[in-house]
Amino acid sequence: MTSILVLNGPNLNLLGQRQPDVYGHTTLSDIETDCVSYGEACGCAVACLQSNHEGALIDAIHSSKGLHDGIVLNAGAYTHTSIALMDAIASVEIPVVEVHLSNIHARESFRHTSYIAPVAIGQICGFGALGYRMALDALCAHLGTTA
Amino acid sequence: MTSILVLNGPNLNLLGQRQPDVYGHTTLSDIETDCVSYGEACGCAVACLQSNHEGALIDAIHSSKGLHDGIVLNAGAYTHTSIALMDAIASVEIPVVEVHLSNIHARESFRHTSYIAPVAIGQICGFGALGYRMALDALCAHLGTTA
Amino acid sequence: MTSILVLNGPNLNLLGQRQPDVYGHTTLSDIETDCVSYGEACGCAVACLQSNHEGALIDAIHSSKGLHDGIVLNAGAYTHTSIALMDAIASVEIPVVEVHLSNIHARESFRHTSYIAPVAIGQICGFGALGYRMALDALCAHLGTTA
Amino acid sequence: MTSILVLNGPNLNLLGQRQPDVYGHTTLSDIETDCVSYGEACGCAVACLQSNHEGALIDAIHSSKGLHDGIVLNAGAYTHTSIALMDAIASVEIPVVEVHLSNIHARESFRHTSYIAPVAIGQICGFGALGYRMALDALCAHLGTTA
Amino acid sequence: MTSILVLNGPNLNLLGQRQPDVYGHTTLSDIETDCVSYGEACGCAVACLQSNHEGALIDAIHSSKGLHDGIVLNAGAYTHTSIALMDAIASVEIPVVEVHLSNIHARESFRHTSYIAPVAIGQICGFGALGYRMALDALCAHLGTTA
Amino acid sequence: MTSILVLNGPNLNLLGQRQPDVYGHTTLSDIETDCVSYGEACGCAVACLQSNHEGALIDAIHSSKGLHDGIVLNAGAYTHTSIALMDAIASVEIPVVEVHLSNIHARESFRHTSYIAPVAIGQICGFGALGYRMALDALCAHLGTTA
Amino acid sequence: MTSILVLNGPNLNLLGQRQPDVYGHTTLSDIETDCVSYGEACGCAVACLQSNHEGALIDAIHSSKGLHDGIVLNAGAYTHTSIALMDAIASVEIPVVEVHLSNIHARESFRHTSYIAPVAIGQICGFGALGYRMALDALCAHLGTTA
Amino acid sequence: MTSILVLNGPNLNLLGQRQPDVYGHTTLSDIETDCVSYGEACGCAVACLQSNHEGALIDAIHSSKGLHDGIVLNAGAYTHTSIALMDAIASVEIPVVEVHLSNIHARESFRHTSYIAPVAIGQICGFGALGYRMALDALCAHLGTTA
Amino acid sequence: MTSILVLNGPNLNLLGQRQPDVYGHTTLSDIETDCVSYGEACGCAVACLQSNHEGALIDAIHSSKGLHDGIVLNAGAYTHTSIALMDAIASVEIPVVEVHLSNIHARESFRHTSYIAPVAIGQICGFGALGYRMALDALCAHLGTTA
Amino acid sequence: MTSILVLNGPNLNLLGQRQPDVYGHTTLSDIETDCVSYGEACGCAVACLQSNHEGALIDAIHSSKGLHDGIVLNAGAYTHTSIALMDAIASVEIPVVEVHLSNIHARESFRHTSYIAPVAIGQICGFGALGYRMALDALCAHLGTTA
Amino acid sequence: MTSILVLNGPNLNLLGQRQPDVYGHTTLSDIETDCVSYGEACGCAVACLQSNHEGALIDAIHSSKGLHDGIVLNAGAYTHTSIALMDAIASVEIPVVEVHLSNIHARESFRHTSYIAPVAIGQICGFGALGYRMALDALCAHLGTTA
Amino acid sequence: MTSILVLNGPNLNLLGQRQPDVYGHTTLSDIETDCVSYGEACGCAVACLQSNHEGALIDAIHSSKGLHDGIVLNAGAYTHTSIALMDAIASVEIPVVEVHLSNIHARESFRHTSYIAPVAIGQICGFGALGYRMALDALCAHLGTTA
Repeated sequence: MTSILVLNGPNLNLLGQRQPDVYGHTTLSDIETDCVSYGEACGCAVACLQSNHEGALIDAIHSSKGLHDGIVLNAGAYTHTSIALMDAIASVEIPVVEVHLSNIHARESFRHTSYIAPVAIGQICGFGALGYRMALDALCAHLGTTA
Repeated sequence: MTSILVLNGPNLNLLGQRQPDVYGHTTLSDIETDCVSYGEACGCAVACLQSNHEGALIDAIHSSKGLHDGIVLNAGAYTHTSIALMDAIASVEIPVVEVHLSNIHARESFRHTSYIAPVAIGQICGFGALGYRMALDALCAHLGTTA
Repeated sequence: MTSILVLNGPNLNLLGQRQPDVYGHTTLSDIETDCVSYGEACGCAVACLQSNHEGALIDAIHSSKGLHDGIVLNAGAYTHTSIALMDAIASVEIPVVEVHLSNIHARESFRHTSYIAPVAIGQICGFGALGYRMALDALCAHLGTTA
Repeated sequence: MTSILVLNGPNLNLLGQRQPDVYGHTTLSDIETDCVSYGEACGCAVACLQSNHEGALIDAIHSSKGLHDGIVLNAGAYTHTSIALMDAIASVEIPVVEVHLSNIHARESFRHTSYIAPVAIGQICGFGALGYRMALDALCAHLGTTA
Repeated sequence: MTSILVLNGPNLNLLGQRQPDVYGHTTLSDIETDCVSYGEACGCAVACLQSNHEGALIDAIHSSKGLHDGIVLNAGAYTHTSIALMDAIASVEIPVVEVHLSNIHARESFRHTSYIAPVAIGQICGFGALGYRMALDALCAHLGTTA
Repeated sequence: MTSILVLNGPNLNLLGQRQPDVYGHTTLSDIETDCVSYGEACGCAVACLQSNHEGALIDAIHSSKGLHDGIVLNAGAYTHTSIALMDAIASVEIPVVEVHLSNIHARESFRHTSYIAPVAIGQICGFGALGYRMALDALCAHLGTTA
Repeated sequence: MTSILVLNGPNLNLLGQRQPDVYGHTTLSDIETDCVSYGEACGCAVACLQSNHEGALIDAIHSSKGLHDGIVLNAGAYTHTSIALMDAIASVEIPVVEVHLSNIHARESFRHTSYIAPVAIGQICGFGALGYRMALDALCAHLGTTA
Repeated sequence: MTSILVLNGPNLNLLGQRQPDVYGHTTLSDIETDCVSYGEACGCAVACLQSNHEGALIDAIHSSKGLHDGIVLNAGAYTHTSIALMDAIASVEIPVVEVHLSNIHARESFRHTSYIAPVAIGQICGFGALGYRMALDALCAHLGTTA
Repeated sequence: MTSILVLNGPNLNLLGQRQPDVYGHTTLSDIETDCVSYGEACGCAVACLQSNHEGALIDAIHSSKGLHDGIVLNAGAYTHTSIALMDAIASVEIPVVEVHLSNIHARESFRHTSYIAPVAIGQICGFGALGYRMALDALCAHLGTTA
Repeated sequence: MTSILVLNGPNLNLLGQRQPDVYGHTTLSDIETDCVSYGEACGCAVACLQSNHEGALIDAIHSSKGLHDGIVLNAGAYTHTSIALMDAIASVEIPVVEVHLSNIHARESFRHTSYIAPVAIGQICGFGALGYRMALDALCAHLGTTA
Repeated sequence: MTSILVLNGPNLNLLGQRQPDVYGHTTLSDIETDCVSYGEACGCAVACLQSNHEGALIDAIHSSKGLHDGIVLNAGAYTHTSIALMDAIASVEIPVVEVHLSNIHARESFRHTSYIAPVAIGQICGFGALGYRMALDALCAHLGTTA
Repeated sequence: MTSILVLNGPNLNLLGQRQPDVYGHTTLSDIETDCVSYGEACGCAVACLQSNHEGALIDAIHSSKGLHDGIVLNAGAYTHTSIALMDAIASVEIPVVEVHLSNIHARESFRHTSYIAPVAIGQICGFGALGYRMALDALCAHLGTTA
């Protein structure tokens, strides 16, 4: 059975409380629960992790080697500043789909750049919580997983 | 019934012939056929149009007013140079989902910038032909359409 | 009798419908009608044309040679991206007055640059539909036309 | 009766003597006289002031509060360097029309930027002395003044 | 009673040992002790925390929600690189006063930019340990706290 | 007795009238009165001056030599453009504290740069009229003045 | 027999009328006639096309597939702005030689950049109408065509 | 008899007191006295003026028309920021020699740019008070003055 | 006996698995073992530490004070983004030699900049695992250690 | 008889040995021999020179005055860095045709800029050794030489 | 027996005399003698050359082909400006180790860029004369040479 | 007796022939003769050297050590590109006065930057051949030489 890690970065634990006009009212827990059940329906086991620590996210990506077949990654603000996360993904050679709740290309210019993108399959942004389902779909298609 | 326009820009008519290592072997006709049937399953009428002319794409967006409820737009290379397309979308106030076959953020730096993004709901890139299905899903969710 | 072309570029056909907080409720037809009658009062024959196609605008400028004595040009978004339009104006050697409905220098920075300006007599922006009358006045003064 | 201040900045006192190939032979006194009589015809009282001192221009803008209904401002070279003038205009909340004798967008690149533009109604440039009449027209239209 | 968190970032634990010509001889413990007693005198309970870990600082800001009424933040070098800290502050909607021991605008240019500033009430820099007292004063004034 | 000059630059004379959402309702006179009495309480004689003229501000700084022991300077918009003011401060070798009513680092990017900062002890911004009291405190501490 | 398309872009139809000091007195028709006869002498069938429309140029490049063995392209001002033309050339995999009448590297800096160059065999500029003969020579040599 | 104005800008009145390691111990009065007697020896009447006001410097340049045959100008910090001074020099068409006490090209990069240079005959910097004598020599040579 | 810390940053724990074409097949454990024995031969006690956490690296540098005489630092991707690490090194005043396995100056431009370099003795890059031995040699030479 | 210098710059002596995938297998001697005989056929005497020394190339250009009627110049890497070569060409006023073996506009961005171009008639690049023949043709046409 | 060229560029002949605080008291002759004897101990024949002429350095690199197995190169200031040296190294395909006496990344920013680095195995800087021994070690390791 | 080297760089040997509108009709020999006799009158022995070779200029500066007391340097176009010349001057610690015939700050922007200036006493430009006399004066004054 295909195993997928849904990995969330800094401040995403506050989802639902934080700037709801930008990010909506859904909590991270809601999203993780939905990912697990949606994954199940697609024939995937979905594990979830969130951390505000760049190092912890790198550790999680390293640990995925041999454990998970793909990663759905919302690296939050580290997307725009972390070459180390970029290197971590390149090191483990596990396919990654990059997801963002908001349309980062329609916000401040420092959010238009992604160090994740050059080592990811693709990027999805602007669709809120639905983006995670879309990312799971895309990752499953990439892995040739069918429900 | 919800009506959606799938609008493709310059060079996408060559799909399947053009640089298959970057864009795959699927033709535009394959994609358009798939969009129509996938849309049907979701309860949407999907119309398709492609043009290499920036002005023709602007005209098509204008004509959508009162005709279509949403647009899936792959503006190709005009994505990165056309303020006029950006203005056209802003003018008609129809929701647009931006889609790209390749991961534009992992290619040349002049493909990282999008004039479409600031006026679109969200952006999907890197997932090949699947991206159009994802875009239809996201647009339907935005419009509250259910099959 | 002096002949003047009032040439409008992309998205200006939507005037009155498009972002009324930025561009007002007057339609392009209203403006063109006003230009014709205002021109008449000044002793000028005014012809009007609008196109969303950069190539069509270039063609129109070329065709003006020997037909019109001056051009009032609102090139819309092509103002900021079209070196080809700039070259077209330089090629025909007909005096051009650049006009914009909104104050382009008070909007996004990519709207502050004009490829039209270096080959135009002058620029008028920010005065809405009145700008066209002002442009006709300035063009007539330049041409030495008096009612 | 509507009262308008025509305010000119550095070096404009030399008009007629200074680089006539760029600025023409009309003197500032000619322009001011014309503005007063043209204003009269439009039902406006026009007052005129020129200074080479940035601070004096700021003082004049401040003093306009409660005295004038609008300002026609040719800030000369301070247009491109003075954030303080920009702040002065924003502070008094009197409508300002920006005017330049030459087409600043067709000259050196450091003359393309205006700190006045973001706080002005609109900008007129390239039409020589006629620009002041155009500015008075535009300001009157904005103020709803009719002769 | 008003509760305030004094939060210090990377390398500030070395205060008193580190480059005394730039940062002085006072230790962080001296500053924290002074903040607590100064806060007391102003009618505030002051809690103190320092970490070299960006993630730990983010966690601390998150935990402040419902616990503290304001934060005095010296984010050290993360000030100039951490969009994640910026997002954390924006997420919790607790008023933050930014403080720096040295005058960051008089040092290397990469220290002139602050990701904290756009989400803080204000910034104080260059006054050494006194800056913390000033920050407490400003925060109390903002919160309407009076001794 | 310690003598301090509170020096205010362009447009600050309009305080209370000017954009109250940005700068508040307090007038400059209120601030100056408060500075004098607050200074008194701290054992300082406070003199106040405001000018919209860059040259007058430079003159005032020069005249302070031998007259005042320190300067609280809000140079307004000249902060961002005046190398001459920077040189004036460096020339007289009187300690200067830079103050701004608004948080300049959270506004337009051309307000993020300060020519005053490299020659000042420190910078205070974002705390409204309170910033002047904070500046007096910081200056007194720097001068070793005690009430 | 080798077939070559000589494709000219915006404003080149005005050749001979347009800025003769920059572009000379030869008309486009002169050049096309010369290309046909020169091509004949070299054993090539030469077809000619000109358009001011970016989209029409893209269409022409697409249609060349299976019809022409090589393209001599003077894309005029689109050279510097059209990523879409660049993609069109890359898509059809027909060898292209880039030609310009004037020495674009000795003119305004925005004419120094070419989106055509990275997908062309080589570039010829500055030799007026002779450049087309040189381009035909180079293309024939590349194709191994001999008279 | 040739008449020359030695015009000094902001902060130069402090010469001798200000940063003596950069500017030396000579006062402005010393320099002006030396210029007058050195000028006499060369057969020139030398007048001297200093102001910290940009507007006053512009006024002085304007007044020189018909009064002085040449100007030795040390515009101090306004050298790097004042387009208005540049325009003033261009307006009066009196030859100007630019002089600086310190080697501005060996200091902070914002002192490397001069708005005076493009309208001056030449620039002398780095030779302290001697630079004024050199400037007088060069100006006399330019004017064809001989003792 | 001289004590040296060999400190490795993010992703270096994956050495041997990660992009072997760039970084080779040697593991971090191989390198650390070699450093210890090579150090021994040179008369140095070598301690080793690796972390993916920026904060943990800062903590390790702080703890080195009084414990180690020098540090060999491969900060990985944090080299290019961490001002905090730079400050940590400056704070403890222990000599640091910067080492990189690959030639960072021959890779992506964002890897050409190092925040470590300005506070390090020197930099070694491009020599794979051998670089660590070279760094130990250089550090011993700097410390005057001889076997 | 027309005399032409074919002048080659740094590293071109290695032609045939150096990166044959970029520059081909032809040696410089082959090219020079071909230029001489091709020139002969066109009625030109062709002299050849190569040097790796920038100064020697400048000397050669100087010596051409009165000796040669035109220069075919492949300045190699000095094309992108040598203002001195640019000045040399401008000084002698001999027509120069710039040639490059590879398409410099399709390589690293630092090879896109040419200091030779602004003082040359035109530029030819990307056609290998054939480029020299094309350059001779263009130069002869410019000089009005006919076989 | 392995043969290595130690090649030094501009100003390195002055070593020991030149800015000893930056470069130390060792002369170039000392370094070359040490390289020869150190090389001997490692089983390498070391030849040495220094020139202030860019062209002479290029010639030396060319001549190394078939003569030397590797080059230790300190190109001095040419490191930062010479594309021609970069091309020379790429042309001969001899492994090069780049060395600098000072830590170039800790000096002026124009010394941070190296045209040598992209074509060298690796870079060593900041270790003074020791750097040459380190370079010989690294080159020998690369060549598989063992004493 | 004081000994001074007048050192001229690339293309200055062509003086009098080269672009006389920019550089005048005086030859280098005229200037050198004048420098020798003017130097004599001032009590200085003046030696002269010109080379088009950057390396030869560096050699000449090195050889000046112990031979000349000062250098008047017109480095021509190498002024703007040669870090090696800058280092050569810094190495020999002989005072250098930088001179240019034309006003380099009034020409193309790439001529505004000087690598010589930061290591020279001062810069003189725009005064033609007179500039050399001025440079000799300034150098003598700096050396305390009196006739």
